[in-house]
Formats: sequence, C-alpha cells, structure tokens
Amino acid sequence: MTTTRRSVLAAGPALAAAAAIGSPAFAQTQSAAGQGTAGQSAASGGQAPGFYRYKVGDMTVTAVNDGFASRPTEGFVRNAELPQVQQALREAFLPTNQFPIPYNTLVIENGGRVTLIDTGNGDSGAPTTGHWMRNFRAAGFDPARVDAVIISHFHGDHINGLRLKDGTAVFPNAEVMVPSAEWAFWMDDARMNQAPEAMRGGFQTARRVFGPIAKDVKQYEHGKEIAPGITSVAATGHTPGHTAFMVSSGNGKLMVMSDITNHPALFVRNPDWSAVFDMDADQARATRHRMLDMVAAERAQVAFYHAPFPATGFIAKEGNGYRMVPVQWTPAL
Amino acid sequence: MTTTRRSVLAAGPALAAAAAIGSPAFAQTQSAAGQGTAGQSAASGGQAPGFYRYKVGDMTVTAVNDGFASRPTEGFVRNAELPQVQQALREAFLPTNQFPIPYNTLVIENGGRVTLIDTGNGDSGAPTTGHWMRNFRAAGFDPARVDAVIISHFHGDHINGLRLKDGTAVFPNAEVMVPSAEWAFWMDDARMNQAPEAMRGGFQTARRVFGPIAKDVKQYEHGKEIAPGITSVAATGHTPGHTAFMVSSGNGKLMVMSDITNHPALFVRNPDWSAVFDMDADQARATRHRMLDMVAAERAQVAFYHAPFPATGFIAKEGNGYRMVPVQWTPAL
Repeated sequence: MTTTRRSVLAAGPALAAAAAIGSPAFAQTQSAAGQGTAGQSAASGGQAPGFYRYKVGDMTVTAVNDGFASRPTEGFVRNAELPQVQQALREAFLPTNQFPIPYNTLVIENGGRVTLIDTGNGDSGAPTTGHWMRNFRAAGFDPARVDAVIISHFHGDHINGLRLKDGTAVFPNAEVMVPSAEWAFWMDDARMNQAPEAMRGGFQTARRVFGPIAKDVKQYEHGKEIAPGITSVAATGHTPGHTAFMVSSGNGKLMVMSDITNHPALFVRNPDWSAVFDMDADQARATRHRMLDMVAAERAQVAFYHAPFPATGFIAKEGNGYRMVPVQWTPAL
Repeated sequence: MTTTRRSVLAAGPALAAAAAIGSPAFAQTQSAAGQGTAGQSAASGGQAPGFYRYKVGDMTVTAVNDGFASRPTEGFVRNAELPQVQQALREAFLPTNQFPIPYNTLVIENGGRVTLIDTGNGDSGAPTTGHWMRNFRAAGFDPARVDAVIISHFHGDHINGLRLKDGTAVFPNAEVMVPSAEWAFWMDDARMNQAPEAMRGGFQTARRVFGPIAKDVKQYEHGKEIAPGITSVAATGHTPGHTAFMVSSGNGKLMVMSDITNHPALFVRNPDWSAVFDMDADQARATRHRMLDMVAAERAQVAFYHAPFPATGFIAKEGNGYRMVPVQWTPAL
C-alpha cells in the first residue's frame, strides 16, 4: 500500500482505519457466496426474494433463482490450466478454489399464458439450491396455473424441478415440451445400456422425470416457433439436442442462451474454454462462438441459465472473448 | 449481419427468426429503465422489492433502493464532449440521450442497533423515486426503530428522506449525525444570502430538513469512529464536507463511497470526468482518483449511492480508469 493510497484516509485519527484497510483481511472476495451459509439471516429477516421482472415487447419475463452450487475449480475447465481459471475467477472477484454456479429459470407471461423455460433442481440438487418454488410463489405465480414448460436440454438442474423425488408432478396442468433430439438421445435404452457408468445417472434422471408422462410429452424441432413468440434455436454441443430460444414480441427480443456457456465469468470471457459438462466440446465451442458473436454484434438482450441473478444483460466483444454486462436493475416494468 | 452469424440459426425454418434478429429493433438498449413506466406491471404482480442483504463481518448490511431519476446526457459531464459520454453509456448498454441514475441507501445492523447511511429522496424527488419506504419495510424494518441516521452530505437526494414535505420526521427516534463541515457550509445564513440563485435551493433544503431538529443534530468530524465499526473518511470536493465511510467488523470491510462518483458507468470508467454536481471539481477528481486507486489495489468491497442496485461490488483497474464489478447475487447471507 503506497503512501498516496494511505493518505486518502488523512493523517492522525484515521490511521487506524488506514492500517485496517492495508491488512490482508481487506483483500476480500465473495467467499460467503461460495460457502452456502443459507441458514444465517439478519434480525430483520432473510434475503430478498430471488425474482426479477422485465419486459420483452408486450411479454413479461420473470427470472426466478434456484440458488447455486459451489463447484471445485480444479478439473472444471477441460482445456485450461488451473491458474488461468483461478485468474479469471479472481478478475470476477469470485473465490478461486471453489466458486458458486447460479441457476436461473425464466417465466414468460404472454396474453394470459404462463410458460416456463426450464425448471431448476427441484428437491434433487445441492443443499444451496431448491429456492425456486419459494421465489416463484413470491413472484405471484401458482404452479397449478402453468400452461407450458419448455425444456432446453435434459441435464438434471434443468429438468428435476418438473417432478419431486416422491414422484409428484410439480406443474400438473402444464404441457411439457422437449427437444426431439434430446428425447431421442436420453430415452434410448440401448444407448443407456452402452453408456459408461459415469453417464448412467443422466439417463436415469430423464426416465425419472419424463417416464410417467412419456406419452404426453410434446417433442419439438429446432428452428420452429414452438409457442407464441418463442422460437427454438439449435445450439447443440453442450448436449445432443441443446436448445436456445429467441423470445420475440413487437420490437422486443430476448435471446435465451441456456447452457451455451456455464458461468459467464469463465466462458463468456474465454469462449474457447470447455466446461466438463459439454458433451461434444468442439461442437459446443463452435456454437458458443457463433451465438456470442451474433448477440454481441446485434447488441441483443440475453439471458443465461448460469449467469449471476437476475441473469440477463448484454454481451460486449472484448479482446479474444466477450464480457457480459448485466442489465441495470430497475423498479419499473 | 454476416452469413456466419446468420447461420447459427440454421437454414430453412429458422430464417424468419434470423431475419428478425437482423432487424434494427433487435439492437436494444435498456430504454425501459430510462422512461419511468413504473405504473405497468405483470398480471402476476410488480417488480421484486428493492432490497439486498450482505454480511460485513458480524454486521448485516441492507441496500435499499429509492428508484432512479432519468437525466439528460447533454450537459451532465462538464469536461467531456457529448459523443464521448454517449459512447460510455452505449458501452454500458444504457440509453444515450437520457439515462437512469439510481439511488441506493444502506441500513447497517450491528448488535441490535439499526443505523442508516443516507435516506433517499423521501417525497421530494422525481416521480420515478420514492420507493424507499416500501422497500425498507419489505426488508423487515420499521422507521420508528431506527437508532441513528448518518448523513454523507447535504444534497437533497441524500437528506430529503429524513422529513416529508408536510414536516413529518420519518425516523422520530433516531439520532441524526452530519459532517460538521457540511453543517458549517449549508447552515451559514451569510453564505446562503451571497449564493447565486441556482444554489439557493440547496441551502433551503438543508434548513427544511434539519431546521426543526437543529439543536439535536450531532455533528461529526472526519477520521473518527462515529458509530461502532463505522469510521468517517474525508472525501471532500463533491461538497465541502462530503464523507465516505469505512464499515468494519471482524475480518469484514466495506468502503461506502457515497458520491465519490455519480453513475459508475461514467465516472468509475472515466475518473477524470466531472459531473455537474461536483461543487469543487478539481478536489472531487483528486478524491475520486485516490479512493478508486485504494479500493482497486486492496480489492475492497465497495458501495456507491448511484450504482445500479444492489449498488455493491468491487473496483478493477482498467486502462486509464476503472470498472465496477457487481457482487454476484446470492440467496445466502
């Protein structure tokens, strides 16, 4: 700490404060976010409910947070050295040994119809997840009045919210819409039986969630308007049928990026990096570059499932990568 | 729009979507935030309450939002050309002709004591302000149980929340603490009488708010621990007694930057720029550089009154200026 910086706190009485600022303890990162101390709360109450509304043309979109999972940094990026990944986390002021990956779904209100895109972890996720239903209800919604649930892909953190562990259907009156390529892959018994042991869980999760409603699930193709104003966009690589969505109403547009990147601090900044979750890393990387390039050039508003809540913003080109610029929070719709 | 970008939406059925993305309407900025359409809400309800809690050691800090004011860009920065300022707004994906300036106060809970730093606009601000009390109550607080109100400086958007237009004291049981240099300047009748007409309002606001409690107001000096864990830090220039605060508890530290900058997208990025509100532009610029340099070097968590809600994050050095990195929202305290 230089004298110049120290001097800002003035001489004399403030030197104690200056000394405290100079101590290592002042070099903070957001360690609390990575430690899951969800039980603590202020005398006045807990955190504000995790929902955020914004308009897309005449539609109202609500981001609903399902908490986060703390993930060890080591081994998370297939093709980068640990110190590089830790440096990226440090630049985002996140903890570097493990870091919090957020989960955020979308609710779209359009002409009285309530449509979800993905569902969160339900009661099957990490202890720091499972906030979804409380936040959804705090936003004024009722799961029995959801008209449609659109699934981007079959990873558990996107589909487990459809069905509780005890078998309960969470949205009993909703049409469930899934990518046909995703269904073909994950519901193929022969493929499951040939899969390595580490991949079996994914096949079993798909059967647990969709099995009881298999005959009613509506499969959709890429490149179609699958609900009013919602067009499915092929974004394969992360999974065989992974889907992005263009949400459009009047002059309003939102590109729902799903899992085209995991945490933006890592993979928007470094689009060549591959998270361990990308099933076809090369295809996922090509998809990531194309989509980020498009939304950056068009200055399109975007939503990412694994961005920090409220998980919507814009993408700016920067160096060899991009930067996510969050929306400015507003009380106004 | 290049073929490469267009091709991400695949050929055939998705071409309609691709064409829509290519339209000018897809080049969005956050225009809604600047237009104050606060009356619109979704069928399911309005925006989530504007409070956000975080821990600083054993203390609980709650950011409370008071809305925003939409400000014409022209004439706002004294020493930059309009196109430069508009470019900075564009890089933040904000509207460029007028832009929303947020207001965010802090509530500090420490050992059962409730202390405010600044109070918002009360019922004296723009129609897009005045959200403070609703958000404060939504966070579980009661204005009658506020123990102390610490004022950073006497601009109306920081003090009008102390007293309604009809004269009501909003925090009837709170000790009110103000910077002595601020009191000496704004409560000086001779200075008011000599002031140019455009400055009279500021003197009158100070009298309206503090006049009825003048004998009870506690004046504090810079460089003192003025409440447990809260140290006043000289940050003059914006006003003659403008004050920052170091909030400290155990290993936790927070530097409350008050109005050392106005909107970070302009003045954290460009610390040499002077907003029209800075009364001594040179002194304010020197303070801004010193404080930003310090918190960047120390990776200190900061809070800014005019940053986008939740108005807390970190400062990274970038080029000739800095960048504010917001905290990652977390449901956990």
